[in-house]
Amino acid sequence: MATYPFIEEADAGPAVRAVYEDIKQTRDVDWINNFWKVLANDPAMLKRTWESLKQVMAPGALDARTKEMLYLAVSITNGCDYCTVSHTAAARKAGMTDAMLHELIAIVGMANQTNRLANAYRVEPDEKLVEAAKGPKG
Amino acid sequence: MATYPFIEEADAGPAVRAVYEDIKQTRDVDWINNFWKVLANDPAMLKRTWESLKQVMAPGALDARTKEMLYLAVSITNGCDYCTVSHTAAARKAGMTDAMLHELIAIVGMANQTNRLANAYRVEPDEKLVEAAKGPKG
Amino acid sequence: MATYPFIEEADAGPAVRAVYEDIKQTRDVDWINNFWKVLANDPAMLKRTWESLKQVMAPGALDARTKEMLYLAVSITNGCDYCTVSHTAAARKAGMTDAMLHELIAIVGMANQTNRLANAYRVEPDEKLVEAAKGPKG
Amino acid sequence: MATYPFIEEADAGPAVRAVYEDIKQTRDVDWINNFWKVLANDPAMLKRTWESLKQVMAPGALDARTKEMLYLAVSITNGCDYCTVSHTAAARKAGMTDAMLHELIAIVGMANQTNRLANAYRVEPDEKLVEAAKGPKG
Amino acid sequence: MATYPFIEEADAGPAVRAVYEDIKQTRDVDWINNFWKVLANDPAMLKRTWESLKQVMAPGALDARTKEMLYLAVSITNGCDYCTVSHTAAARKAGMTDAMLHELIAIVGMANQTNRLANAYRVEPDEKLVEAAKGPKG
Amino acid sequence: MATYPFIEEADAGPAVRAVYEDIKQTRDVDWINNFWKVLANDPAMLKRTWESLKQVMAPGALDARTKEMLYLAVSITNGCDYCTVSHTAAARKAGMTDAMLHELIAIVGMANQTNRLANAYRVEPDEKLVEAAKGPKG
Repeated sequence: MATYPFIEEADAGPAVRAVYEDIKQTRDVDWINNFWKVLANDPAMLKRTWESLKQVMAPGALDARTKEMLYLAVSITNGCDYCTVSHTAAARKAGMTDAMLHELIAIVGMANQTNRLANAYRVEPDEKLVEAAKGPKG
Repeated sequence: MATYPFIEEADAGPAVRAVYEDIKQTRDVDWINNFWKVLANDPAMLKRTWESLKQVMAPGALDARTKEMLYLAVSITNGCDYCTVSHTAAARKAGMTDAMLHELIAIVGMANQTNRLANAYRVEPDEKLVEAAKGPKG
Repeated sequence: MATYPFIEEADAGPAVRAVYEDIKQTRDVDWINNFWKVLANDPAMLKRTWESLKQVMAPGALDARTKEMLYLAVSITNGCDYCTVSHTAAARKAGMTDAMLHELIAIVGMANQTNRLANAYRVEPDEKLVEAAKGPKG
Repeated sequence: MATYPFIEEADAGPAVRAVYEDIKQTRDVDWINNFWKVLANDPAMLKRTWESLKQVMAPGALDARTKEMLYLAVSITNGCDYCTVSHTAAARKAGMTDAMLHELIAIVGMANQTNRLANAYRVEPDEKLVEAAKGPKG
Repeated sequence: MATYPFIEEADAGPAVRAVYEDIKQTRDVDWINNFWKVLANDPAMLKRTWESLKQVMAPGALDARTKEMLYLAVSITNGCDYCTVSHTAAARKAGMTDAMLHELIAIVGMANQTNRLANAYRVEPDEKLVEAAKGPKG
Repeated sequence: MATYPFIEEADAGPAVRAVYEDIKQTRDVDWINNFWKVLANDPAMLKRTWESLKQVMAPGALDARTKEMLYLAVSITNGCDYCTVSHTAAARKAGMTDAMLHELIAIVGMANQTNRLANAYRVEPDEKLVEAAKGPKG
């Protein structure tokens, strides 16, 4: 159904294969999911996207589970079905429980609601909150 | 600028005042931000929205900081400026550091990007990921 | 602030002036709002947009007030501030009361919430609802 | 396909069953649609969402048909397929004719168009419209 | 699956048939795609939409291929699957190569990312850029 | 107003300064716009974002003007004001005329409209178009 065929590992050229190997090693999985197999039709995009994603999703100040949950919250908001599936799965793998998923979904729903209430009434940011948002360095 | 005047605490009727008191107590703050002061023009909406929000944002399987960060990720994605300000401030109050905020923003950016790559190439969810998304109960 | 200057009535060429006259007559107003004054920098776009809008917003099976309220609900959802202001004003002129506006906003908020709950849980349409959506002709 | 199994009426615990009964009675239907059967995997979310929805969608200053049509306009704008189906069906049940549906869709399309024209040209709200939007109380 | 039946050419009334003939002639095709066959359930919408689209998509200062690619970039961003398919096909017919499509998708992804970075950090437009955006006439 | 202070060139550390120099050289400009000066609060994000953008926006199968116009079309659709300003300016610098900008905006408006018509009527992709979208390699 995808616009381009899946590039399977066996058929991949060396540039694509190198990214696939890095994906498998970084994520500790033994297969490549469809997203990457379609991106591989443009090896430069595959490499650029994977390298950015790898950097962004590596545990840092936030742990892997929180990171996957943030990714999922955005994907649900945008209505991206592929990403909703893949990041629900990834967040579960990183330790998200059913209770956490339900809470995440409740927050995503609530935020989408209040975002529109703020738009509708044209509420101006409070000066105190603008300052507080800047943090100690701002 | 808002479509309705701010209902200040001193001018609020008893129903609105009761919600304001609950907001201040629940959040341990001594003032009410503009969002609620505008919603108070419709006391039923104020009460319903606050009670849902209070329930959804109470610490549960997820801690308060993670919850505020999820709220912020949605608000940024939707381009809601008021909510971006108020939830950046709230997440900081709940312990979000600069490093965490930068990581959150990087994830929001990346998710918005890959959501569109998945749309563009019409990638179908992998059967394995659909199963993994369901979790042990699914 | 707009990217193009406002084309005032006094400075408009005959093609733009004809549209301005039709706007004033159709809406029973004696001035032209900024949206049209900016579109007038491209007279073909001004004419095409106005003629479609005039056709779409003319009372038909739905009355003018309902039509303006639908327009407003979309504009709030998209976070378009100009359109939120102009269609709040237009809906009021067509008879929308404060109570109606609050109800409209509550629905817009609720729909934005449940739209994401449906995305998040990947709920499939019920066959019965698909049939009911088609109506007697479908 | 949904991430959680449908909780059928026969298998529901008392908290879920109570909500199901209220849905059936309020809407005068003898079955529960998939949306609620999936939400029922989190009984607190089921109850909170239903109670808010029931309050928001009860006839008030706006009649039930107008309310369903507003809900539908938002759902189409957001591209939520489940909600588009279910609220097209609900609006028809509340009296929306084919002619009304076509007019609604035309408005949704037009609003999505002019929202972007306003963004593109960065049109500033007219002071007169800002005042008119506030209404008599503002 | 669509909410209304497809109006086939053989079954179309004269108003619909006239639009269909114009579509086939303008686009040099010998069949009508589903989008128009569904719109034909409301002949006025069919005619208005086609005539606007025909005017907007006719080669002008921009060539047909660039126009189809802009249409596609919007459709991907909005997650409209039908429009993504139909405008990928149309852009290819107008000369878009695989390399161009990959570049387009990369830009759409990148723009969706940086749009959110700008939202997140609340970056204000540079006065110099505001002036430059206005062009020589602004 | 931004959440973080602008990192001016004079105050930048060597990592940020190196990116700033590359931006100025690549774009043939002698100043840094606010977007980058805010991102510089997170030097890793500055570098990653700039390097991806530089790669994606370099002339390839598509020329620079077409690329900037695609970027602008997405930014308008998402309602990102900063990006609308900066990419209108950039597209003009790359040769976009007023006539081209008006045509671009007309297409963005039209696509946002028909995207919703397709959603509303739940139109299924034509098999012929799905095949044509795949191109010769698909």
